[in-house]
Amino acid sequence: MKGIIFVIDGMGDRPVKELGDKTPLENARTPAMDKMVEEGITGIMDTIRPGVRPGSDTAHLTLLGYDPYEVYTGRGPFEAAGVDLDVQPGDIAFRCNFATADEDLTITDRRAGRISSGTDKIADTINQMKIDDNVQIIFKESDAHRAVLVLRGKGLSDQITDADPKHEGNKPKTVKPLDDSEEAKYTADVVNQFVNKSYEMLKEHPVNLERIKEGKHPANIVLPRGVGAVPSVPSFEDKYNLKGACVAETGLIKGIGKIVGMDVINIPGATGGINTDIDSVHKHIIDTVKDDKYDFVLINVDGADEAGHDGDIIGKRDFIEKVDNIMKDLKEIDDIVLFVTADHSTPVSVMDHTGDPVPVFIKAPGLRVDDIKEYGERAAAKGGLCRIRGSDVMYIIRDLMNVTKKFGA
Amino acid sequence: MKGIIFVIDGMGDRPVKELGDKTPLENARTPAMDKMVEEGITGIMDTIRPGVRPGSDTAHLTLLGYDPYEVYTGRGPFEAAGVDLDVQPGDIAFRCNFATADEDLTITDRRAGRISSGTDKIADTINQMKIDDNVQIIFKESDAHRAVLVLRGKGLSDQITDADPKHEGNKPKTVKPLDDSEEAKYTADVVNQFVNKSYEMLKEHPVNLERIKEGKHPANIVLPRGVGAVPSVPSFEDKYNLKGACVAETGLIKGIGKIVGMDVINIPGATGGINTDIDSVHKHIIDTVKDDKYDFVLINVDGADEAGHDGDIIGKRDFIEKVDNIMKDLKEIDDIVLFVTADHSTPVSVMDHTGDPVPVFIKAPGLRVDDIKEYGERAAAKGGLCRIRGSDVMYIIRDLMNVTKKFGA
Repeated sequence: MKGIIFVIDGMGDRPVKELGDKTPLENARTPAMDKMVEEGITGIMDTIRPGVRPGSDTAHLTLLGYDPYEVYTGRGPFEAAGVDLDVQPGDIAFRCNFATADEDLTITDRRAGRISSGTDKIADTINQMKIDDNVQIIFKESDAHRAVLVLRGKGLSDQITDADPKHEGNKPKTVKPLDDSEEAKYTADVVNQFVNKSYEMLKEHPVNLERIKEGKHPANIVLPRGVGAVPSVPSFEDKYNLKGACVAETGLIKGIGKIVGMDVINIPGATGGINTDIDSVHKHIIDTVKDDKYDFVLINVDGADEAGHDGDIIGKRDFIEKVDNIMKDLKEIDDIVLFVTADHSTPVSVMDHTGDPVPVFIKAPGLRVDDIKEYGERAAAKGGLCRIRGSDVMYIIRDLMNVTKKFGA
Repeated sequence: MKGIIFVIDGMGDRPVKELGDKTPLENARTPAMDKMVEEGITGIMDTIRPGVRPGSDTAHLTLLGYDPYEVYTGRGPFEAAGVDLDVQPGDIAFRCNFATADEDLTITDRRAGRISSGTDKIADTINQMKIDDNVQIIFKESDAHRAVLVLRGKGLSDQITDADPKHEGNKPKTVKPLDDSEEAKYTADVVNQFVNKSYEMLKEHPVNLERIKEGKHPANIVLPRGVGAVPSVPSFEDKYNLKGACVAETGLIKGIGKIVGMDVINIPGATGGINTDIDSVHKHIIDTVKDDKYDFVLINVDGADEAGHDGDIIGKRDFIEKVDNIMKDLKEIDDIVLFVTADHSTPVSVMDHTGDPVPVFIKAPGLRVDDIKEYGERAAAKGGLCRIRGSDVMYIIRDLMNVTKKFGA
């Protein structure tokens, strides 16, 4: 019996006038999921707790049974792990932007003209940077103008502010300690030096001289944000004695898989948007589910969340229909416990995450099948699972997989 | 967007034979609330946890997001704050009765003939009392035979028993320490001295000499009970960045509003019973909700609870119908997140609080409207909120007000 959590990122929504007061999910044609709901059991779920707006990172950690209030300090560590940096507990990690600064360091383009090549060479240069003998600078480019930075050394802290000024026309923010500790003061100082040195090292970098010649914005400064300390967590396998794989589109979710020690499956052509290569996503999901090596698979597809953030009603609905096509294949696989959910709601009317509960269903043998026949936020609220929490999910799945032991006698 | 919690105190009930096996709420004509239920979302709620019988004080603290297991030690502090005593964290506060004692201190009337005037003059005298140099005696009359006592000083404790003997024909109970601390021993001693001195100071008080002449029972002794330490809590405004008002009838709920730093609105004519001046209550609720000064309003009407305690089936049902008339006006106000609930059930058959969950509904823009069409305990159990807890309420309201931040990214 294999366990699967299939997260349709940001799918939960609210009724939309344009869809006849249905949500995108309620409005979508989802015959495969409806059939599994009919033959399964449904409910609503508060990923963290009722009314709390989860991030995708805190939500996925919770679904896997890790308490985000204990292990989550920021997005940086997961982004860093997601680009395959070998992060270690205690490392301080950041997401970064390559940006364009003028001579007095005023940021003129926060995305360096959405630079799409040469960032590996720029990263090589940044990796030569030396701040002092204590701290090691580990830097890697991600896609487009994105990168990650890891500080490794003694006496570091994640209790510091961001360098990213958020708006063009400003200089990088001076990073400040958030508490009175020497560690925070020192780390803030390191990051401030990092930002200034990045400009010194990059302003005449060959890649940038070439870009300037071509009339493009140079990637001549690096702006770290989303700081977090890499948590020390038990691996998924140690925790549950299940060999896990993570099939995801975005670095953030891949990074979570990596940090909990899962095998992370790369999906060529995956963008995390509604324009993703859905056939490639489809193939890699089914292949991984069918791979005997794994007892457990965490799946994340991201388009519905992106459409929600964009307020794209039809895009969101249509993307859900594409996901249903993947579900058609999962429907035919026996001997799985399939838990389908969103990590949070991203209503198209709000264009951001909200605390609305998400609709879930389970496909598994031997369930107490309820009388709900379609997959939707409001139908699910009447289902046999009633209202559960994200922290319940690994317990429920493992129980249905029949791999848990009695508590007591 | 304004947040409102409207508490119909003690409204929750059980089916009553005399009402055709309906609860008072199910039997009541409540067209305004039914309409809001039809256009909103409903559910049931365990204010503290399933089966726990909440007091009105612990219930309201929970609804506002304060953990009563942390901040609640007794009713005294809230009663004291409710009569506008400026209590401070660490003060030890009591509710008191003015009572009638004979010469050997046997209590002959626990309510001093339900004395209705002159208690302010008696309070003036009590405020002259001196126990020792350490402890300050702060005393104030409340309505009828009720009063509050605050002890302020060093080395005080709330770990002591009550002085009130509960039944006439007994002497005041000797207050005893509940733990081995010097503080509890000292505080018990202070309260015992207080009770004895109150008799010495009041037995020939002019107000009492006059009462005796008129054949009335003198208020010649003060009996403290309901001891609690005034908690140190973050203000509602600091906690949520929302400016709050509290519109309530009883000192207890006003005191909760006061201690969390809300503006407390006084309602002339409010009695907290089914005989309250409902028009005055109505007017002050609507005026406060419409007051631009406030982002959040806590409303409490108390008659249904009183009727529940009295086992008054028809009185309870009819009072709920009067409240529906107030709801009619709230129904017409847009841009509010209105959370309607009871703080606990007070079934007329039990005549006291029980742990039965309470029926709730939310009126707000953009909700996942469910298919429930009337407001009742059992209809609500089928609603789209399923079963929530009191500690979820401020999270849910602020999420719907769109004033919360994501946890994570």
